[in-house]
Amino acid sequence: MAIPPEINVGLLGLGVVGGGVATGLLQDGAVSRQVGHPVTLKKVLVRDPGKPRDTKLGPELVTTEPQEVLSDPDVHVVAELIGGVQPTLGFLKQALSSGKHVVTANKEVMAKHGLELLTLARQNRVSLLFEASVGGGIPIVSCLSNQLAANEVRSIRSIINGTTNYILTQMAYQSTPFPDALRQAQELGYAEADPTNDIEGFDAAYKIGILASMAFRRPVSPEEVYRQGISGLEPQDFLYAQELGYAIKPLAIAGLEDGGVCARVYPALVPFGQVLAKVDGAYNAVEVEGSLCGKILFHGMGAGREPTTSAVIGNLIEIGRSMVSPSGIGSSGGLDTLVDAEAGKQPWATPGIRPIDGLMSSYYLRLNVADQPGVLALIAQILGQGQISIASVLQKGADQSAQTAELVIITHPSREDSVRKSILKIADLTVVKRVNNLLRIEV
Amino acid sequence: MAIPPEINVGLLGLGVVGGGVATGLLQDGAVSRQVGHPVTLKKVLVRDPGKPRDTKLGPELVTTEPQEVLSDPDVHVVAELIGGVQPTLGFLKQALSSGKHVVTANKEVMAKHGLELLTLARQNRVSLLFEASVGGGIPIVSCLSNQLAANEVRSIRSIINGTTNYILTQMAYQSTPFPDALRQAQELGYAEADPTNDIEGFDAAYKIGILASMAFRRPVSPEEVYRQGISGLEPQDFLYAQELGYAIKPLAIAGLEDGGVCARVYPALVPFGQVLAKVDGAYNAVEVEGSLCGKILFHGMGAGREPTTSAVIGNLIEIGRSMVSPSGIGSSGGLDTLVDAEAGKQPWATPGIRPIDGLMSSYYLRLNVADQPGVLALIAQILGQGQISIASVLQKGADQSAQTAELVIITHPSREDSVRKSILKIADLTVVKRVNNLLRIEV
Repeated sequence: MAIPPEINVGLLGLGVVGGGVATGLLQDGAVSRQVGHPVTLKKVLVRDPGKPRDTKLGPELVTTEPQEVLSDPDVHVVAELIGGVQPTLGFLKQALSSGKHVVTANKEVMAKHGLELLTLARQNRVSLLFEASVGGGIPIVSCLSNQLAANEVRSIRSIINGTTNYILTQMAYQSTPFPDALRQAQELGYAEADPTNDIEGFDAAYKIGILASMAFRRPVSPEEVYRQGISGLEPQDFLYAQELGYAIKPLAIAGLEDGGVCARVYPALVPFGQVLAKVDGAYNAVEVEGSLCGKILFHGMGAGREPTTSAVIGNLIEIGRSMVSPSGIGSSGGLDTLVDAEAGKQPWATPGIRPIDGLMSSYYLRLNVADQPGVLALIAQILGQGQISIASVLQKGADQSAQTAELVIITHPSREDSVRKSILKIADLTVVKRVNNLLRIEV
Repeated sequence: MAIPPEINVGLLGLGVVGGGVATGLLQDGAVSRQVGHPVTLKKVLVRDPGKPRDTKLGPELVTTEPQEVLSDPDVHVVAELIGGVQPTLGFLKQALSSGKHVVTANKEVMAKHGLELLTLARQNRVSLLFEASVGGGIPIVSCLSNQLAANEVRSIRSIINGTTNYILTQMAYQSTPFPDALRQAQELGYAEADPTNDIEGFDAAYKIGILASMAFRRPVSPEEVYRQGISGLEPQDFLYAQELGYAIKPLAIAGLEDGGVCARVYPALVPFGQVLAKVDGAYNAVEVEGSLCGKILFHGMGAGREPTTSAVIGNLIEIGRSMVSPSGIGSSGGLDTLVDAEAGKQPWATPGIRPIDGLMSSYYLRLNVADQPGVLALIAQILGQGQISIASVLQKGADQSAQTAELVIITHPSREDSVRKSILKIADLTVVKRVNNLLRIEV
């Protein structure tokens, strides 16, 4: 297939995520640089062109007629950001059938019709990518498909619905009753006016169905996922669970049990020692256990405009790279752009190297000092001259025989070179026997 | 490029990782199924063919002559698992120059000569993939290159040397002095006889250099990474840090500071509230902060035969897929194999669906019961009849006016269907006012 002079992207939908993707495509050519070829936003399907939006598009880019995207032979890639099955399924089928690559963030349509759509993609020799359908900005779909492909997957344990995780976190830490926690989530925009999809586990069932289908190479439909919602939980459940050593978390799990796939969504008790017990608020996490890789955990923001945009544009870049790369070459990805940068081919703004001297950090300083009055004052004076202020001090374990004590000083953020200079002066003090350690503090 | 009837892989090295990769390639066609095309182990370069090994290879597969791999036109992909720069760099250059795709696990050669090798790959229109060079089984290299490509990376904070993390974990939890902790790590095979490479931060500097080069599209050489080793730490540093609310962790960091890349490797204090503070033992973790995705954390086993094999074979599968896929189609990855499975094209053993009835789990049961003697005995009797044994019981908050109490029961692992049947019987007891909740416990 000849490489078009520009890769034209058509968007279906200009909502929260669609707006983010449109903005990303219009921004300073970053996507084109990553692909190594011009990528252009060609047309955006909207329902109401008069609606006020954050994303300002020229009127020539906007249409209310689906065929202006789907039937335009110059649109090479369609990104579907409408959601739901109707009318989206028909749009996706038409796009694939007419030889367009497709990126979608639509978990419901992938969970219910994924195999059908992927088969259509295969028949038409185009790509269908759907990273954003599960886990927002967390690249779990691609990793399961590709990087972890050497593994027999044993289990997937995840928190992939941020709404219910937010609600359960409120119930756990604030003892908020369920109806109040739900209302808070709605006020913050985490939950929809009709929250059924989240709190009854449908959303998580779509997502774990998609992950299970990939991991176990067997279509797992949403009806095959066991669901229990969270509305039956009360604050005392969290108190009792805590007393027994557990957090209560909204889990989505798929595993091989006796040779069959068992997929399920429910609130469950998780021992405090496990990482999943510490995934709070609107965060998502997915733990994959594979035959070779062991347990790998992915943790990040699972929803929202920007993380989802990250996943959608990541897929668009992947398709763009495959379109411009000769057959047989797997992308070396970001480092290909590095080769471009070195070759002067791409106008990357290449940053310089900053030596550590200019680093701003808090520091931990441990000194052996004479056990006598006035020592701290001497040290504090030197630090003060270097514009280094002290956050806290511990005096420790005086050694009676040697008449020395240990002094631990934590500084406020200071410049590395200034700290080093001051340490040299401090080491020269006769009351300072030894500078034991100087460590940085990462906050 | 025509697709060869078999994709032939040549291995350089049959050590810990080489043995794992050879075993994976010889095993029951799993790699071929993932690629959708036969993938064959053609030849393995070893230094001493007489050395006893776990991995049994026919003598026709083994050679001590590099050119039997590098000059064989039937070898399409070379996987380099020797390590170090000499003689490896020459092998890699020859492989790329003669049009072979290359997979390497070699952090040192990629850190020191990555750009040169990638340029050579580009000139010869072949792939060079190196997922296993950083983070073992954690797919951080590919994610930075591809899935996160829509982001401007702001920082990478990581624990990517398992040896030093193991040593610092021992020092923190057991107050083990450094020399003893190092000796333990050597006895367990985590540290080498000459541990300099790990404890002085060279290994981590190679790895963060590779990640920083990708993230900031600027070659960051190992010499440009600031290093501080861990041998100066003493057990009391961990005690004082703990008192102040910090863990001490062997960090490798790269960030944009004032428009320049500052990359550094040192032990640092990390507040207990941060996930990195909880990454213990030989585990690795990498946190990427991107302009869109926010903070994403990857956590898993960063070294060892099997995780590294997972990464190397994952790269081999990626190259294989790109070799058999027509130009312009990005792989839909694992779901492509699903399409195959449905079409009856691939002999996958497709698992069935297991309903939740057969699940073995511990359960949390909360009941409202009459506040009178003998209630627990009645309930325990029903559970016992269902082969469900009780792990612990909490009795809570008697309601004086209603004369009821709350009973929380945790069971040992039991079958879901049996638990449900028993709950129905328990709900029928006149002393049981209400079954408030039944939740599963994920251990």
